[in-house]
Formats: sequence, C-alpha cells, structure tokens
Amino acid sequence: MIRNDMKKRMELARAKIYNALELGGGHTILSTGITGDDSRLARAVTDVGVKMIEPNHPAVALARGHRGVVTMHAAEQIRHEITVDQMAEVTRGVRAVCPADTYITVGIPGGFTEVVPMPLKDEDFMKMALAGADGLHTHKSCIEDLAQLVETAHKYGLLVDAYIGKASDLHTFGLPAETPEEVARTAKLMEDVGTDMIGLMTGMSYEGVDAGDIHPEIKERLQALVETVHVPTLAEGGINITNFQAFKDTKVNILVIGTSIDKMVEKAAQQAVKEFLSL
Amino acid sequence: MIRNDMKKRMELARAKIYNALELGGGHTILSTGITGDDSRLARAVTDVGVKMIEPNHPAVALARGHRGVVTMHAAEQIRHEITVDQMAEVTRGVRAVCPADTYITVGIPGGFTEVVPMPLKDEDFMKMALAGADGLHTHKSCIEDLAQLVETAHKYGLLVDAYIGKASDLHTFGLPAETPEEVARTAKLMEDVGTDMIGLMTGMSYEGVDAGDIHPEIKERLQALVETVHVPTLAEGGINITNFQAFKDTKVNILVIGTSIDKMVEKAAQQAVKEFLSL
Repeated sequence: MIRNDMKKRMELARAKIYNALELGGGHTILSTGITGDDSRLARAVTDVGVKMIEPNHPAVALARGHRGVVTMHAAEQIRHEITVDQMAEVTRGVRAVCPADTYITVGIPGGFTEVVPMPLKDEDFMKMALAGADGLHTHKSCIEDLAQLVETAHKYGLLVDAYIGKASDLHTFGLPAETPEEVARTAKLMEDVGTDMIGLMTGMSYEGVDAGDIHPEIKERLQALVETVHVPTLAEGGINITNFQAFKDTKVNILVIGTSIDKMVEKAAQQAVKEFLSL
Repeated sequence: MIRNDMKKRMELARAKIYNALELGGGHTILSTGITGDDSRLARAVTDVGVKMIEPNHPAVALARGHRGVVTMHAAEQIRHEITVDQMAEVTRGVRAVCPADTYITVGIPGGFTEVVPMPLKDEDFMKMALAGADGLHTHKSCIEDLAQLVETAHKYGLLVDAYIGKASDLHTFGLPAETPEEVARTAKLMEDVGTDMIGLMTGMSYEGVDAGDIHPEIKERLQALVETVHVPTLAEGGINITNFQAFKDTKVNILVIGTSIDKMVEKAAQQAVKEFLSL
C-alpha cells in the first residue's frame, strides 16, 4: 500500500539530481568527507550552492576517531564497524540543516563490499529512508549483490548510485571492468538492474590534493561509461581543482569531491590555531 | 581501593595543563567547536601544537544537526538532549587520535545549568573517565551544585573547569558576580571547593570573529580572577585574533577559542566548493 508513495519519493529525489545538473549545465559536484557528515560544514557548503552531499561510513569512522584511524586507507579496514544507526543519525542531521533540494546519498556498512561482509536487513533501508536519505551510495563488486541491493532500496524509496572499478584497485570499490569495452558492458548491466546513477572509480583515490592530471586511460573509461548509459554518471577518486576541468570535458555529470576539500578544511583549522599560538 | 589511582590520574591530567602553560610562557589556547569534537580536526590542530581541546554538548548538537539547529544560540536551548553516551563516543574518538599529552575537557549534559535540568549519575562520570576525558568543562551557576559536581568528578579522577559570569548574561554560563570584588570572592569560593581551573565568561560569546576589542570592565574582572586564585585561569567568549593579545596581557592562562576557528573552517569549506562550482 505504499508502493506508489515510494515511487513518488524516488521521483522527487531524481528531480533533485536533474535540477542540480540543469543548474550546472550538465555537471554538478557531490561533496563528501567532512562536508558530507558534519552538519555545520554540510550546511556551509549547501549555503553556497552545493546540491549533492554524501555522508559515508569510512568518513564517519574518521570523524569519530573510531579505533584511532587517521587515514582513509585505515578507515576502509574498519568502516564496517560503524553502525547503520550512526549513519542514520548523521543523515538526520544533515537533512535537518540543509535546504530541501539537497540530494543526500549515504554510504552504509553493507552497502560496500566490506572487509568483513555485513548483511543489510530491510529495516536498515527503512531506517535510512526515515532519516531522510534520498539514496544509497554503494560500492558493491558484483552484479547479483548490486541487483538485490537496488531492489530493496527501491522498495523503500531510495535511489542507488553504484560504481565500476578495476580488479587491481587498492580497495574494492566497484564492479570490475578492465577495458573500456568491459566498462560499457558492465555499465549496461548495472543500468538494466535499475541502478539510478553509475560512476567510475578513477583509481586515484585518497590523494585528492596531490593527484596529477587525468590519465588517458581514465578518459577512455569515462567516455565508455558516459556514452553507454542514460542515467546520470559520476567520477570518484582524486578529483581536485587542477584536474576538475579535464574531468568535466569527458561529459561525466557528477564529480565526487572529498579528500580535496577535507585537506583544505584541515589546513584552515591549522592556520587558524597557528595564528593564535604565534601571538 | 582506587582512591589513590584516581589521585594519580588527576596528577597526570594537571601535569598536561602545566606543561602546556610552560610551553606557552604561561599561556595556552583551549580549542573547541569543530576542532574539539571532530576527530579529523582535533587531530589536525593538535598536530600543530594545540595542547588542550574541549568537546562539548552544544557544539555536538550543531555537529549532528540535532533538531536542525544551525546557531550556537539555538543549540544551547536543546543541548541537554545530547546524551552522555554521545559525548563519551566523541571523547573516545578525539582521545584515540590526539597525542597523549593533549588535555581533553568535556562539556556534558548536566554539567551546565541546562534549560531542562539533567541529573548526573555516578556512572556518567565513570563513562567520561573511561572514554579518556581528563576533565569536565562545566557551567554551573551556584556554588552548591558546583561543589557536588567537583566532589563526584574527583571521585572518578576527573578535573573540573568552572566559570564566573553575570546574572544578566544571555545564557547562564557560570556563578554570577557583578563587580570585580564579587568576582574575586566567588573565585575564592570556587577554589575552596576544589575547582581545578577557574574561568571568566566575557559575555561576548557567539560572535567570535566580529567581536571587538576587550572592554575595560572585562579586563578588571579578569584581573580580579587572576590575582585571587592559584589554579590556572581561563577566559571564554568572543576571543579572536584581534583581541587575543589584550586577553593575554591580563595574565589569564588559558584562552578558549571556538566560534572564531569554526567560522574560519566553514569559510574554507565554502571557498573550496565555490572554486569547483565556478570552473
């Protein structure tokens, strides 16, 4: 009896994405890291035009100093210990302070291929929907698990963004595809099972600020993705101010930016206290 | 059977404060707001020399977007709804990522004169001690409640910093004292009941960055405090880069800085995303 309510919920969420893309001439940024999970900073960035944010469990592991992790690499090893309830709390918070047209996609334990596999129950999806998530940010690594996740997410009115990576990536963040042809084939499969947004992992993750220019291979892979699917596309990993335009030139719609902003924010905090300490 | 263990715990905590003051020629800063409760930023500031940090429940209300609050003023009205468990989680996190010589004082619901009074149980103190707090950051408004709080805190090895304000302050953040003479008398009472650090609320709270120079009245009140007590002294409220030296000149030991750093961090996040959005 809520099937159509859920469809309407998803239509509203989709409209947020398309409005953001229209506003940005076919492009927008998805702000993550500290700007995705700290309500003060989520509000600050949406105040100046960010339309999509992404709280996720590895970033929350860093935010909470869980097990003392201080690098994203270490956080990925223990992110599964962050709970769905913690992610729901974070989501409720950013939902409460950001404008209503902000699209919020959330990474939750079990939504990624975790170091320790975590089962997701129907009530977990319901929790995230009630917390105000528009969608789930996922990093599953096979089509069957993704298909099942998409089906359940849609049942609870949540859209799903999912990714393509390489088997050789440091972390397993997507369905593996080695060549541009495989990227296209995999993207098509993902679209067929109902994935609402499809992204490419650049493989340049974690070194946002220092990452260099865009590699020709990444360009080819992104073009294969963009030319194949009809749903909005994303690029994630190592996007910074230097290579941003090169990414846009591939016509990929949504540029995921996390580490790069985190580093700037951390530097600002350090500059602030250094000024006081030097007086 | 743990009375002496707790004494030793407090001696170690006191040593952290005195080391910080020695390092800064009699002064240090207490970094709060986002640098007190977000493990990423607590780590960032302690990495560049901050020795004292303060997570507190109103700032955590802002961090979690609790009830959608976006100003510190609004956060003060609902801060009592943040739980001791949430503050313990925050404390465990910053403790896990900051150097061992970082002094961590924590504001918890019931440690302030709350809009809705919150009882504190012995187990709450124990929780905070186990989470790794060195002390409690308190804002009680009468000597009896403060004395009781100090007694229980010491039982669990926690030091206490407490404050003096004015009855006419927008928020009740301390024991009231109108004249410099009353400040001296009140500070003496607070020291007599075992308060480990005594601070003065400037009354310039919440407008960190915009606050002007230091008012002669605040100077007189601070001097009355500093000249009266033997424990370390603090000043809190509206301290920024412009008036910092004026505060130091009063010989107050610890300068609490929150809003001022928060604003700089928020601005940095906004600058970062504005750069991306303008490309």
